[in-house]
Amino acid sequence: MEFTKLGEGKTKEVYNYDSSHVLLKFKDSITAGDGAKKDELPGKGVLNAQTSAFLFRLLESKGIETHYVGMYDERTMIAKKLKMIPVEVVLRNIATGSIVKRLPVKEGEVFDPPIIEFFLKDDARHDPLLNYCHMEYFKLMTRKEAETVEEVMLKVNQVLYPFFKSKGLILYDFKLEFGRLDGKLIIGDEISLDSMRIREEKTGRILDKDLYRKGADLQTVKNAYEEFFRRISE
Amino acid sequence: MEFTKLGEGKTKEVYNYDSSHVLLKFKDSITAGDGAKKDELPGKGVLNAQTSAFLFRLLESKGIETHYVGMYDERTMIAKKLKMIPVEVVLRNIATGSIVKRLPVKEGEVFDPPIIEFFLKDDARHDPLLNYCHMEYFKLMTRKEAETVEEVMLKVNQVLYPFFKSKGLILYDFKLEFGRLDGKLIIGDEISLDSMRIREEKTGRILDKDLYRKGADLQTVKNAYEEFFRRISE
Repeated sequence: MEFTKLGEGKTKEVYNYDSSHVLLKFKDSITAGDGAKKDELPGKGVLNAQTSAFLFRLLESKGIETHYVGMYDERTMIAKKLKMIPVEVVLRNIATGSIVKRLPVKEGEVFDPPIIEFFLKDDARHDPLLNYCHMEYFKLMTRKEAETVEEVMLKVNQVLYPFFKSKGLILYDFKLEFGRLDGKLIIGDEISLDSMRIREEKTGRILDKDLYRKGADLQTVKNAYEEFFRRISE
Repeated sequence: MEFTKLGEGKTKEVYNYDSSHVLLKFKDSITAGDGAKKDELPGKGVLNAQTSAFLFRLLESKGIETHYVGMYDERTMIAKKLKMIPVEVVLRNIATGSIVKRLPVKEGEVFDPPIIEFFLKDDARHDPLLNYCHMEYFKLMTRKEAETVEEVMLKVNQVLYPFFKSKGLILYDFKLEFGRLDGKLIIGDEISLDSMRIREEKTGRILDKDLYRKGADLQTVKNAYEEFFRRISE
């Protein structure tokens, strides 16, 4: 690409597009365990780019602002240039993953209302949990902004949960990242099977990156990502 | 004691005194690392009981409600019977201890305003950090109650910090536990060198349980607890 690279994460490259836009190029890398496990999965970048674009358009259609502007090519998104906040915001409908190890909750417990958690993006410290005091101290977001972010998370859940349900899929949890634009907090980054846990309603079959975390072969992971995109977009 | 034992923790026994009061008997045990390290330190129970009583009286004199009623004997406190919440509430003025390992902060960093954290009392899970969502889900306290608790923590700090400062001592952090009485949240448990970090202002010398955590001999620990009580009470 002829654009200036602004940064690169574990699964995406960011390029300068113009003064107010970036290009997000989704790589074929798949990683787990704060980057400890890593593979290449040809085609995964295109699938995550298309999934994210589809879901951002869905959110925008429901009045939820995201950084999504359009696609540059099949694996590259044109997005508003945000000042990203290095925090992962997680909403959990059903208990699985880290929370089951960390707190006295059992796999499959239902959270109603959902539990929302903020984690510092810090692989070396394994993304520690943050409270409002920590976020204010680190100048990540104010208490008021954190409350606004929680409201946005709930709104996103109110769109995504029933949408996936209508496709026979259950949204266990999802992670979003936010960035600032003109003082406002907007959803950035991606929404894909790297950042959501999705199970088939009837069978409980896993369709997300937990397949990879749990050691499934790469073809099985690829098939799940393809099946998911087909089911939500048809 | 001729009273019915209601419970026993690592450093205290609780007895039924009457329908609305308990007796808190401070043991000579000293523990660290979620109970992994444990010793007997003769006289420590009396010192912690007297320190706690002294500081509860100080807080009460400033209009902050605690469970303290009076002393039954030198190591036994008469306290209001509360329904205790199994949460440790920590206020940090200066960074030391677990926060330095958990988050990107350096030993000795000053928090202004102080950082307040809630931890679930769960030795097996090493007292995990909780946010408001967790506390509501576990029915520990509502978001509104948590905000009230934070206000009380700040008030307590505004009493204790300058008081210790006037004695040449710096309050790095402290932990309180709260209980319910007639729907109100009241400070329970203890305030002692087991639950505060105190350093001498001029020398930086440690006067609290960190001495024991760091492996000082028991006599040194005992001397520090004695010196502290003498300095605050004279």
